[in-house]
Amino acid sequence: MSFFSNLFTKKNSAPVAKDRLQILLAHERSSRNSNSDLLQKLQKEIMEVIQKHISIDQEKIQIKVDRGNDFSTLEIDIEVPQQENIT
Amino acid sequence: MSFFSNLFTKKNSAPVAKDRLQILLAHERSSRNSNSDLLQKLQKEIMEVIQKHISIDQEKIQIKVDRGNDFSTLEIDIEVPQQENIT
Repeated sequence: MSFFSNLFTKKNSAPVAKDRLQILLAHERSSRNSNSDLLQKLQKEIMEVIQKHISIDQEKIQIKVDRGNDFSTLEIDIEVPQQENIT
Repeated sequence: MSFFSNLFTKKNSAPVAKDRLQILLAHERSSRNSNSDLLQKLQKEIMEVIQKHISIDQEKIQIKVDRGNDFSTLEIDIEVPQQENIT
C-alpha cells in the first residue's frame, strides 16, 4: 500500500515522537441521483468509536470531505497525544 | 485524492450497478516496541457502526490487514447490495 507510505513520508518531514491515526472512507455510488450521504452519517459515529479507545485533542483532528457525483471521500487525520492512552 | 480514483478504476473494469464502501485505517506508531493493536480494536466496532446504516452481505466484505513495525493498516471493502438500504 504505497500510497499510505507516501502520505506519511510527505507529512512527517521532521522526526516527531507521536502516534497518528488516519481513517479514509470512500463511498462509490452506482446512481448519480443519490442524495444520501453515507459518509457524513458514519463520520460522527466512527469518531465516537475511536474516542472510546484513545483520548483525542479536538485541535489535533483534521477532517477533509470531498463530494463527487460518483464517489465521496472522507479523510480523518488524528494526532494521538500519548501512546499509553490507547486502551 | 488520485489513489482512490486509481483504486476504483482498477477494480471496476466492467460497469456494474452497485455501490461500494471502502474504509482504510492506518495507525502510525512512534514507538516500535508497542504491542497495542488499535486497528484490530477499532475494526469490529466500526463494522457495527456501518451495519446500523446499511445491510451488508457478509460474503461481500473483504478485509486486509497489514502489520508493520512503524505503522499498521486495515482495509475494509464492502459491496453495498442496494442503495435504498442506506438509512
